[in-house]
Amino acid sequence: MAELIALDDPTDPRLADYRDLRDVELRKHLEAEHGLFLAEGEKVVRRAVEAGHTPRSFLMAPRWLDGLADVLDRTDAPCYVLSEQLAEQVTGFHVHRGALASLERRPLPSLDEALEGARSVLVLEDVVDHTNVGAIFRCGAALGFDAVLLAPRCADPLYRRAVKVAMGAVFALPWTRLEDWHGALPALSARGFTTVALTLADDAVPVEDAVRGVDRLALVLGSEGHGLSTRWETSADRRAVIPMAAGIDSLNVAAAAAVACYVGQSRG
Amino acid sequence: MAELIALDDPTDPRLADYRDLRDVELRKHLEAEHGLFLAEGEKVVRRAVEAGHTPRSFLMAPRWLDGLADVLDRTDAPCYVLSEQLAEQVTGFHVHRGALASLERRPLPSLDEALEGARSVLVLEDVVDHTNVGAIFRCGAALGFDAVLLAPRCADPLYRRAVKVAMGAVFALPWTRLEDWHGALPALSARGFTTVALTLADDAVPVEDAVRGVDRLALVLGSEGHGLSTRWETSADRRAVIPMAAGIDSLNVAAAAAVACYVGQSRG
Repeated sequence: MAELIALDDPTDPRLADYRDLRDVELRKHLEAEHGLFLAEGEKVVRRAVEAGHTPRSFLMAPRWLDGLADVLDRTDAPCYVLSEQLAEQVTGFHVHRGALASLERRPLPSLDEALEGARSVLVLEDVVDHTNVGAIFRCGAALGFDAVLLAPRCADPLYRRAVKVAMGAVFALPWTRLEDWHGALPALSARGFTTVALTLADDAVPVEDAVRGVDRLALVLGSEGHGLSTRWETSADRRAVIPMAAGIDSLNVAAAAAVACYVGQSRG
Repeated sequence: MAELIALDDPTDPRLADYRDLRDVELRKHLEAEHGLFLAEGEKVVRRAVEAGHTPRSFLMAPRWLDGLADVLDRTDAPCYVLSEQLAEQVTGFHVHRGALASLERRPLPSLDEALEGARSVLVLEDVVDHTNVGAIFRCGAALGFDAVLLAPRCADPLYRRAVKVAMGAVFALPWTRLEDWHGALPALSARGFTTVALTLADDAVPVEDAVRGVDRLALVLGSEGHGLSTRWETSADRRAVIPMAAGIDSLNVAAAAAVACYVGQSRG
């Protein structure tokens, strides 16, 4: 059972994992160096622990203890209890969803491990916004996708904001990094996937036609700003477009992912 | 042509429209009282002006002037020019997208005016998050919807964050408030629309079936937290669901809107 430790000093070194949560650059370094990530809110904390991530510690105000009593029962990690005001001083923002937990990252699976048994996967190139990455995980999990593969420059799915937006779907779906950016899509084709790239390229066909009857589907989405690189666009097996109204730039990448996952899910 | 006025005092009263942009409550009061809203970034400012909103003023750092020269040419509103550092002091954040404009709101159209010529409309009940409202406008515009109707408690589409996320789609689509919450959906049915409510209700049918062959479609979406009210759920003509993977709570409302708009657009 977790030991409850009341703290009244926001500079206590035991709270180091929870420091300055709004400082993205600082957090990236701290989390990489210590191999940790943060989960926020009762539901997400519970899902992280149930998915097998080992807690390093918890941070809670007294009124949040009850909701996570069952989780605290099953761990030996310390639970630091402090007032909401002090919690805000440590983290740098009002923790309105309650509990925080610092958890251990695990080694990423290999590509073959992540793909094991998968029939539908999402492949993201340089989606750099944590909110978008989280939203895409949530929607992939809801719409029957089995794994997510990330190009080297994609945002970290275990960054607090991504975890929160994904509502824990980052724990439900296997995911990994594609270390070989150049050969990423051919590597999927070689494993029996049909890679379908969402793009505005001239030879793109409606996404419904592109996925029809496909057995193992890899749906490929590009970055927020410029879409897919030429390399990924041309090395995909098929290019697909979501038909849009005239004069509109495009859908946000998370909206495009939602539509494409829906179409992919019902491809028959 | 806009008069360029160099300012070096961040407390100058002429900058009142741009004060403390991150303070949501303050902004709501200020914008309602003065009937104004803010547009941010060259593209969005241009779209707001082209959509017929009269500018009250502009706020720019010198290096943003060129990009909006054509817009400034066609208006008599003052353009306050100050350093990026001073702009940040006024607004409370780093204005990385460049230009800001304060523009006049217009009286909202009546329901019949908003529906004129519309074949597909979105109806939102209590979507309270500005990002979600903006995302839904963007995706409705991209996927061929003609208007958006908002229940009284929905977030303001002209709030800066919503305008930004919508990429200007809040200017492209006619929208208005539904003043009669209780009778809102029957009022649409009486005007020849089939109201299709997205819900997890027991009698919901797959959304693809619910919209098939519908002539005038009103797609109804509920709030982020609790979905639709019982009143709206039961007063809709049809209840529809997006088929989802087992064990997943739901899609985010913006993702659900994207899927439903896609399905609605291609309903034939």
